Amino acid sequence: MLISAALKFWYFSHMVKVIIIGAGNVASHLYHRFSAVEDLEVVQVHNRNPANLNFVKEPEKRSSELEKLKKADLYILAVKDEAIPEMAEKLSDNKAVFVHCSGSQPMSLLSKFENHGVFYPLQSFSKEKPVNFKEVPLCLEASSSETLVFLKNIASKISEKIFEVNSDQRKALHLSAVFVNNFTNHLYALAADYCEKNELPFKILQPLIKETAAKIETLSPYSAQTGPALRNDEKTISAHLEMLDEDQKEIYTILTQSIQKLHGKKL
Amino acid sequence: MLISAALKFWYFSHMVKVIIIGAGNVASHLYHRFSAVEDLEVVQVHNRNPANLNFVKEPEKRSSELEKLKKADLYILAVKDEAIPEMAEKLSDNKAVFVHCSGSQPMSLLSKFENHGVFYPLQSFSKEKPVNFKEVPLCLEASSSETLVFLKNIASKISEKIFEVNSDQRKALHLSAVFVNNFTNHLYALAADYCEKNELPFKILQPLIKETAAKIETLSPYSAQTGPALRNDEKTISAHLEMLDEDQKEIYTILTQSIQKLHGKKL
Repeated sequence: MLISAALKFWYFSHMVKVIIIGAGNVASHLYHRFSAVEDLEVVQVHNRNPANLNFVKEPEKRSSELEKLKKADLYILAVKDEAIPEMAEKLSDNKAVFVHCSGSQPMSLLSKFENHGVFYPLQSFSKEKPVNFKEVPLCLEASSSETLVFLKNIASKISEKIFEVNSDQRKALHLSAVFVNNFTNHLYALAADYCEKNELPFKILQPLIKETAAKIETLSPYSAQTGPALRNDEKTISAHLEMLDEDQKEIYTILTQSIQKLHGKKL
Repeated sequence: MLISAALKFWYFSHMVKVIIIGAGNVASHLYHRFSAVEDLEVVQVHNRNPANLNFVKEPEKRSSELEKLKKADLYILAVKDEAIPEMAEKLSDNKAVFVHCSGSQPMSLLSKFENHGVFYPLQSFSKEKPVNFKEVPLCLEASSSETLVFLKNIASKISEKIFEVNSDQRKALHLSAVFVNNFTNHLYALAADYCEKNELPFKILQPLIKETAAKIETLSPYSAQTGPALRNDEKTISAHLEMLDEDQKEIYTILTQSIQKLHGKKL
């Protein structure tokens, strides 16, 4: 990848100024993480409602009027998907880089800016829970190779897991994340519900949940598969179905069939 | 709980002799763990096929002929569910305690023995992967309070997580484990498949998978839920459905509806 000498000088000699737009989980985690990096400076965090900016320690960095927004090298739009186009319309700065953080939105939403891209952290953030950013995969996309180098340079200051991902791949990742995060969590919720009904503490399942997630760091999920569906253990499957209500039964049946299909077995 | 003085003396003064029946993952992990405990002695590990007993370091402890089985205080039937009744029929020892390790089988399969019970480790064992047994929940059931105390005493030597669980609750746990282990792993497998088709490395999802499992140690799965189903974000849901094949679409739809039902929303 070619970088012009002037640009190279700028990247590495310059304190990079960052403005974060948004006050949600991603915005607040990025604010905290960027604030801890020596050669990055969070100049401002912007949100229409100043009451949501209490997580910004320095009152002078809280911005709730776009007209008073300062200048920065990088503007990070960490807002809801549907707010990206509107926010892009209101912003302007020809020299800066503009990125959004969405898993499902195309980079082209920001094409009015000469230098633009995507900075998608593939993690589930909670406001209360600190995140080890080093472990957060950052999926980058950029409008030019120079902008990509610039984003990689910034990303490498906060994470060890940096991936170049185009808009289509990012959509596929976002969908995969729904399976491994949202749907998996819902299976936990169904089990928790079922445990409660049977007067069992849900925590009894936590070591198994942890091990299930840990196992696929050394085995592929395909080869880590176990259980009655894989064994084609019809007796256990029938016994389980009898214990479930109609909705749970449907989920059990469809996932059992899907396991058997993937592993080339038939019910 | 009452323990006779004689029995109490026996529990705590006596080197407890254990025979393990079976050569699968549970049997081999129990063998390794028990062998590391000072006041327990694994006398023998029995399996019809001696070739499967190579994990037993001491050749003299490998048994493949039931007639030559030694005497022990505790016999652990770590065999497949369907093999428990047959094995129980072949064994006899009036003074010893007999347990099986199954999540789905009733304790009564061993009722021919005066002292019997269940010793169900609620974890997913792989032959290759070492297990931190301290963290493995051991679900115990026993034919008498004396036998329960005996089993608790043994269990406490290898794990810090001991639960008293009756046969019905154990069946409910086993079914819950199918949801949080087998079905969850299958969601990982579907995502891995999908990533592969889109030329994405599956490892990019691993931190998210780990965090999803870790989150429910501090939040209930109900309150940890996020995503398009919970937000009732129909635009994203439709976009996702268009990206999936028929089978995946069915799973996506049913889990989305189930999330919305649990959280009191409607599609």
